[in-house]
Amino acid sequence: MTIEVDYRFPPGVDAERQAKVIAVGQTAGTWDARFAHREETLRSHLAEVVQVRAEPDGYNLATIRFPEANVENDIPTLLTMIFGKYSMAGAAKVMAVRLPEDYGRRPKLGIAGIRERLGIVNRPLIMAIFKPALGLSADDHAAILNEVANAGLDIIKDDEIMGDLDVAPTLKRLEACRKVLDAVKQQTGRTVLYAVNVTGTADKLIEKARLLVREGANALLLNVLTYGFSVLEALAANSEINVPIFVHPAFAGAMCAAPDYGLAYSVVLGTLMAHGGGDAVLYPAHYGSLPFDPMEEARIRDSLRSRNLFPVPSAGIHPGIVPKALADYGQDVILNAGTGIMDHPDGPASGVKAFFEALERVRQGASFELETLPEGALRRAVEKWGAG
Amino acid sequence: MTIEVDYRFPPGVDAERQAKVIAVGQTAGTWDARFAHREETLRSHLAEVVQVRAEPDGYNLATIRFPEANVENDIPTLLTMIFGKYSMAGAAKVMAVRLPEDYGRRPKLGIAGIRERLGIVNRPLIMAIFKPALGLSADDHAAILNEVANAGLDIIKDDEIMGDLDVAPTLKRLEACRKVLDAVKQQTGRTVLYAVNVTGTADKLIEKARLLVREGANALLLNVLTYGFSVLEALAANSEINVPIFVHPAFAGAMCAAPDYGLAYSVVLGTLMAHGGGDAVLYPAHYGSLPFDPMEEARIRDSLRSRNLFPVPSAGIHPGIVPKALADYGQDVILNAGTGIMDHPDGPASGVKAFFEALERVRQGASFELETLPEGALRRAVEKWGAG
Repeated sequence: MTIEVDYRFPPGVDAERQAKVIAVGQTAGTWDARFAHREETLRSHLAEVVQVRAEPDGYNLATIRFPEANVENDIPTLLTMIFGKYSMAGAAKVMAVRLPEDYGRRPKLGIAGIRERLGIVNRPLIMAIFKPALGLSADDHAAILNEVANAGLDIIKDDEIMGDLDVAPTLKRLEACRKVLDAVKQQTGRTVLYAVNVTGTADKLIEKARLLVREGANALLLNVLTYGFSVLEALAANSEINVPIFVHPAFAGAMCAAPDYGLAYSVVLGTLMAHGGGDAVLYPAHYGSLPFDPMEEARIRDSLRSRNLFPVPSAGIHPGIVPKALADYGQDVILNAGTGIMDHPDGPASGVKAFFEALERVRQGASFELETLPEGALRRAVEKWGAG
Repeated sequence: MTIEVDYRFPPGVDAERQAKVIAVGQTAGTWDARFAHREETLRSHLAEVVQVRAEPDGYNLATIRFPEANVENDIPTLLTMIFGKYSMAGAAKVMAVRLPEDYGRRPKLGIAGIRERLGIVNRPLIMAIFKPALGLSADDHAAILNEVANAGLDIIKDDEIMGDLDVAPTLKRLEACRKVLDAVKQQTGRTVLYAVNVTGTADKLIEKARLLVREGANALLLNVLTYGFSVLEALAANSEINVPIFVHPAFAGAMCAAPDYGLAYSVVLGTLMAHGGGDAVLYPAHYGSLPFDPMEEARIRDSLRSRNLFPVPSAGIHPGIVPKALADYGQDVILNAGTGIMDHPDGPASGVKAFFEALERVRQGASFELETLPEGALRRAVEKWGAG
């Protein structure tokens, strides 16, 4: 099996030449007569330029095929090979990576497993984020969770910047929130997931994740790009960590936002995450405040779903956006709202209710025009944030 | 203590506004009357815009001061805070990060410790890279090492793309090379370091690093940016791993090469590495084929040395460059040559000898003009690659 990568070069770059530099320089390199006895093996480790084709805008796209024998069936060796040293060589962007079906990992739970844990088969899941992001106590977190969980929320997550901080240590947050989750379960039979942000040096982080699960955490959140794909892979490989791992895209822009450098968002948040071992991946939706390309968003969605990961479009998600989101996503999506729930004019519980009213209204094919909306949480949300 | 970050915005971006977005959005966020009881604490977690100043080229530089209480004294939480979500918000580049003296880690060995292990106090160290990069057997590695180690080399490293592959498994490479290192030690008393590339999922990688050290590895190589800073920090924190960690910059260009996105090379390969726990950091020298800014290179050098890490300028290093490198670096530098040693016209041993001839010639203040060079390894190198 081989690995194919598309590199895009801006006008003015000799793409044919650069493609050869990559194919040789990122694999075996060159050798001389002294290594004649290894010729065949060395050759088998070289990459191959499949094609270089001109794009209408003057860019060139080079496709290079790498031997799978050069990597360890994981993301770090893949990245080192396809864009390690070469990332420093000038303007070039990795636009697509095509991996063998069995490359890397599949989610432990993914769409089916998360749905099973929640007992929800046929609608989008609604997810909230604790806000303010940091500065609240563990008990404050529990109080917020109590509001939204009782209003029907499916999943809540820590803000990605909430580490294991004195103001609300991770275990304390879990302990306080776990009581709420248990009470909701007991009173309504509903499972609500709380994705706890897991942090620390790699070994401590893995240890902490196991501890959190033992202490009742039913989901984890990981900033994969600031901790490393190898940490995600370690969590995914650990049989004790039998809860869904939610992947946060923090720092993705550092390697994806530039037009002519780095990697496409759809590679990092789509392809690599789909083979990385997480269960659900957050990424910017194009509805919101972050400048995101709808085509890239669609590619991420499709890459994730193709391997049973839940797409979690985030940023700019509010109740009025639900018709558009469902048109783009259908049912297999987690709608993740921060302010879109927490800043509802009547409070977070109404934020949650507004989402469920919106889902119901889409189901009925009813309009989201303000004047057609009955009094209630959805109407109040649309008054504040608009619709569509 | 506080953390100060300089963000640079291109012309057309409202830098004042963006600075406020960062200061609030990357910390506590906003809150309403419901959190009045936490007002003081929430406020203490907000960042502060110190200044926004116009640069001559129409760019704006915003300095933002973050509370240290928001992070875990490590690199991942730092990156998530300063450039996590915001990295996806549009054109902005992190140009500098100023950390408290005691932030993060210091090297276990660093310049002084590596010099002590080698018993070399007052000259640059010479380092080589196994070439071809992959496709050789473990015994081939040992044969190459035997040549260069006996020629006087100080340090050798795996190519960064050489993982734990069937063609030459990591432990086999170590085993074969260790015999050479032991023989050199026995015959000459000299220690030669072999930085073994350590790979795998985070937990396995840490386990493998411990095993390698138990099996006699006297240095490690880590692709920090594809494995994660949290993995470097875990290795650095582990008392069993009492050998120098060489940090490779693979993938740095993905987050540093773009003019208006990501982070400056001097931040990632300088500041962050200096606080990350490694002992020596490789990065592109401006002498060579990679397009690298001499000012950035100087900043990296100074950041690393300020915390006792060895700077390891790489790429484009060959014997003829030694006078220029010593003028830029003085003695506390590791000169890392790949082809500059391995592709010497008379073989790798001559490549090593050429470097030592070059060091001696600089010491004597002698010219590197080709016609002034006596017959020998250095002259042959300068014939091939030029000087200065």
